[in-house]
Amino acid sequence: MASNKSSAEHDKLATLRHSTSHVMADAVTQLFPKARVAIGPSIANGFYYDFDVPEPFNDDDLERIEEKMREIIAQDLSFEREEITRDQAVSLFTERGERFKVEIAQNIPDGEVISLYRHGEFTDLCAGPHLEQTGQIKAFKLTGVAGAYWRGNEQNPMLQRIYGTAFLNPKALRVHLKMLEEAKKRDHRKLGVELDLYSTSPDEIGGGLILWHPKGGRIRTVLEDFWRRQHFANGYDMVFTPHLARDTLWHQSGHLAFYKEAMFAGMEVDGQQYLVKPMNCPYHILIYGKRLRSYRELPLRWAEMGTVYRYERGGTLHGLFRVRGFTQDDAHLFFTPDQMASELDRVLDFSLFMLRSFGFEDFELNFATRPPEKYAGSDELWEMAEKELLAALERSGVNYVTDEGGGAFYGPKIDIKVSDSLGRQWQLSTIQLDFIQPENFDLNYVGADNTRHRPIMVHRALLGSLERFFGILIEHYAGKFPLWLAPVQVKILTVGDRHDTFAREVSRQLRAHDIRTELDLRNEKLGFKIREGQLEKHPYMLVLGDREVEEQTVAPRPRDSKPEGAVPLSDFIERVVREAQPPSRDDVYP
Amino acid sequence: MASNKSSAEHDKLATLRHSTSHVMADAVTQLFPKARVAIGPSIANGFYYDFDVPEPFNDDDLERIEEKMREIIAQDLSFEREEITRDQAVSLFTERGERFKVEIAQNIPDGEVISLYRHGEFTDLCAGPHLEQTGQIKAFKLTGVAGAYWRGNEQNPMLQRIYGTAFLNPKALRVHLKMLEEAKKRDHRKLGVELDLYSTSPDEIGGGLILWHPKGGRIRTVLEDFWRRQHFANGYDMVFTPHLARDTLWHQSGHLAFYKEAMFAGMEVDGQQYLVKPMNCPYHILIYGKRLRSYRELPLRWAEMGTVYRYERGGTLHGLFRVRGFTQDDAHLFFTPDQMASELDRVLDFSLFMLRSFGFEDFELNFATRPPEKYAGSDELWEMAEKELLAALERSGVNYVTDEGGGAFYGPKIDIKVSDSLGRQWQLSTIQLDFIQPENFDLNYVGADNTRHRPIMVHRALLGSLERFFGILIEHYAGKFPLWLAPVQVKILTVGDRHDTFAREVSRQLRAHDIRTELDLRNEKLGFKIREGQLEKHPYMLVLGDREVEEQTVAPRPRDSKPEGAVPLSDFIERVVREAQPPSRDDVYP
Repeated sequence: MASNKSSAEHDKLATLRHSTSHVMADAVTQLFPKARVAIGPSIANGFYYDFDVPEPFNDDDLERIEEKMREIIAQDLSFEREEITRDQAVSLFTERGERFKVEIAQNIPDGEVISLYRHGEFTDLCAGPHLEQTGQIKAFKLTGVAGAYWRGNEQNPMLQRIYGTAFLNPKALRVHLKMLEEAKKRDHRKLGVELDLYSTSPDEIGGGLILWHPKGGRIRTVLEDFWRRQHFANGYDMVFTPHLARDTLWHQSGHLAFYKEAMFAGMEVDGQQYLVKPMNCPYHILIYGKRLRSYRELPLRWAEMGTVYRYERGGTLHGLFRVRGFTQDDAHLFFTPDQMASELDRVLDFSLFMLRSFGFEDFELNFATRPPEKYAGSDELWEMAEKELLAALERSGVNYVTDEGGGAFYGPKIDIKVSDSLGRQWQLSTIQLDFIQPENFDLNYVGADNTRHRPIMVHRALLGSLERFFGILIEHYAGKFPLWLAPVQVKILTVGDRHDTFAREVSRQLRAHDIRTELDLRNEKLGFKIREGQLEKHPYMLVLGDREVEEQTVAPRPRDSKPEGAVPLSDFIERVVREAQPPSRDDVYP
Repeated sequence: MASNKSSAEHDKLATLRHSTSHVMADAVTQLFPKARVAIGPSIANGFYYDFDVPEPFNDDDLERIEEKMREIIAQDLSFEREEITRDQAVSLFTERGERFKVEIAQNIPDGEVISLYRHGEFTDLCAGPHLEQTGQIKAFKLTGVAGAYWRGNEQNPMLQRIYGTAFLNPKALRVHLKMLEEAKKRDHRKLGVELDLYSTSPDEIGGGLILWHPKGGRIRTVLEDFWRRQHFANGYDMVFTPHLARDTLWHQSGHLAFYKEAMFAGMEVDGQQYLVKPMNCPYHILIYGKRLRSYRELPLRWAEMGTVYRYERGGTLHGLFRVRGFTQDDAHLFFTPDQMASELDRVLDFSLFMLRSFGFEDFELNFATRPPEKYAGSDELWEMAEKELLAALERSGVNYVTDEGGGAFYGPKIDIKVSDSLGRQWQLSTIQLDFIQPENFDLNYVGADNTRHRPIMVHRALLGSLERFFGILIEHYAGKFPLWLAPVQVKILTVGDRHDTFAREVSRQLRAHDIRTELDLRNEKLGFKIREGQLEKHPYMLVLGDREVEEQTVAPRPRDSKPEGAVPLSDFIERVVREAQPPSRDDVYP
């Protein structure tokens, strides 16, 4: 079921969007003659272009730019490609005062051919490809503007980045804009505050470091419990490792050679350098190496909710999506070559089960194979590994895309992307074969033949970063967590003081069945309490008044449905206990 | 039930042991004229004395020293106190070539009276008190020798420290020596390797940082699950906070002013200093301060299994007992003054429940009151807090000792010590009132009177450090973890290959009931497999042979008991499921 359809579609949209960004830059330079252009690529779901302008753009500017773009499109100008030398490019853009383009051209090695794309009066340094005519742009929209540093470096001037998007037809654009509007409402940074789930404290703690508030912490606890139970059931063990290690370890693992940019700076302890961990793997490998292993012990599957720290530039931090400290739902598998097929099947199946448990149904698998030049491990090992991965993919029955040569130098891998309830795609799981770390750390097992062999290693994370996954879940569910995950499952409201005793008794009985409750006994108008309860998005509310106290019943108000009739409390408890069960295989594969 | 009995007993033993250390130093200087004496205090369970000698002492030396000590005791010499000036002390010890004593004397402020204690020819600079006669020493033993740096500083010369102990009578000494022997067998560093529970990697990771292996990780997971469930049941919420923060936070919390020595060095990120956390409190306080709180929200009880890092000198690190990275079972309570009594009762009761759950029965509570001079908070607050703590202690019905003036400057506290199965005492829980951090961070709540008030804060840890607690548990249980904690609950052994299928089916059925199993299908002699199984100390073994396969039964071999008769597998499963329940209040308070 190899599929390159979505890849072709992707290329088509990327070309459209890239051409639209040229049209936008043309419009901007016509309307704002002082504007100097930087770069304007297509990106996921749209495009942007960066401009150096004396004043930031405002909403009116965006409308005028859109109007001018429509004129350019109506003129149906041709996109024309031209090849010139680097020096020609440098003088062309110097003449026009386009200093960013000059800088780009200067960085191109001498002798390489450079392509220009022109339409009308507008010329850009650009590799292409582009549409044939501006008239082929049928549906576009400018979606926003933000500051962005030239080359993403805070030392450089701040430019104005205009974001836009384009689609093949107006209907697709409308669907997308509606999705954006919905996404804005669901923004996890907004819901994070409204539902009191988490916060950051850049001034006190530092950017990109998350404080999980009690309600967020409750969801995390439920999620971790589920995750751990599923891991034990799937034959994993749990290990726990420190957040620091001496540089010795990071030299041996190769992180200081290949990954230093993403690591926090070191600290000195007793004259030795210590670094906070950006990954958990070296620790698991050390545990493996603590004694000689027998083939009878393999496969070993060791998981850890391991909190790692990675340096990200301040300007790129974004809520829970891009942070500096995050908890990976990490695991490392060690196995013999014979066990590769079954281990890959298991881990792929386990990944899809975990993702399905959170309501994700639409998957795209990405299979990345041996890079063309530099790679570690023998050709035989790569061929076998790729064959096994491919076979596992085929057996899984899920669509996949092959990324030829896209594997890491240490082994081929499978990444899993999911589409959320808004159709947005997120890469979550990764399953990476590794032929290198077992070499670096000289890992062995004694085979049935009584001689030593190298185990094969898999790095895998199913949810990826717990912080990022939490952010995705908040938006995926629009803050309406399913019953099993909801931090408060039943909110209990009283009409007046005289119902407090019954309310406490209802809460006590629910809690005795591990149902998470919250009481609102405030002396406020009922309507106000109900509206507040709705904003909190809890799965159930129970409003308790005279009638409920008298009949000793409760009338459930399920989230987003009409209030139901009164039932005995024990019936309601039974229902919630049943509905609050975490997903099982039967739920996920009905 | 205030009790100072154990304190008086403690003083009596301390005097005896201190005098015995003088007798030992006398014996050493008689036998080794080149030996120079350093210091020789009484310590928990014994005493030591440090000597500068050309050659380390060996076992024969210890026997000769004991022999000489017996002579000195037989002479029944008097201990005599004498007071001299500092300068007299300096010249006395200079004359005798006792350079360490000279250094000690020189560090005493001029004008202070210094006391000497003499018996026979031996004179020591010493505050006392001492026994009257050497003949009062009825039971002593030298227990070992180890290197120790002068003043504990690795830059100073290495001395030889002889450890010994003394008791009021020979029987008490015998009991203690037997306990030491047993403790040696149970040493968690030894069992940690034998049972594959954890390891350290000083060269790769650094000293005092623990790797929890799969079996240790399994115990930790069970323990954490239990802990979390109990916390939710006791009205706590869970929060999660990062392991780093900017120095801004540590300045505000006062840690950089008062606690810097115990903190790891900083690291620079984007020109700002970050430090790994030595405590979790400032983060919880930040979350509290994220929005205005109402008295209706209080009490708030926020718990976190928070991994902290504290600098300890390399030479003092010891297995799981003294480490540099550990996970505190931390929580912070925020409440109104009105709520103090009930919150203290709850937390004290909860502490004792948690400790009882791990089989600790013998407690000593330590109540530390306002320091005489420097303290924060009003006298009224202290008086109320001390009164409430005392009342809570009295209500708890547990023995306590009052440590007058022993509280922290920020508030009074209760520490809980437990005696383990060898009678050794460990300080585990701590419950500390804090009047200062709510000031430092300007914490408020809006009271029923609609004005702002300061909440009172409690820091508490029930188990203390998870690493240290795990070390104590290993020794307390001698590695024989109770069924609910055991990493493997049932070990399944086969007599021969033909029993493997049944063994796998038994394992599958046990696992389906969440019973943790391990299979030994190796082609080894049964006796060998059983002996290995015994060394692993799992609660149950099942040996499966022809008869079991034919009858579809299992014959349990409980740890440390005789093999039992065959029962249907379902009966065994029911029994293990029942026995493996974590402790409940009914178990703990039968």
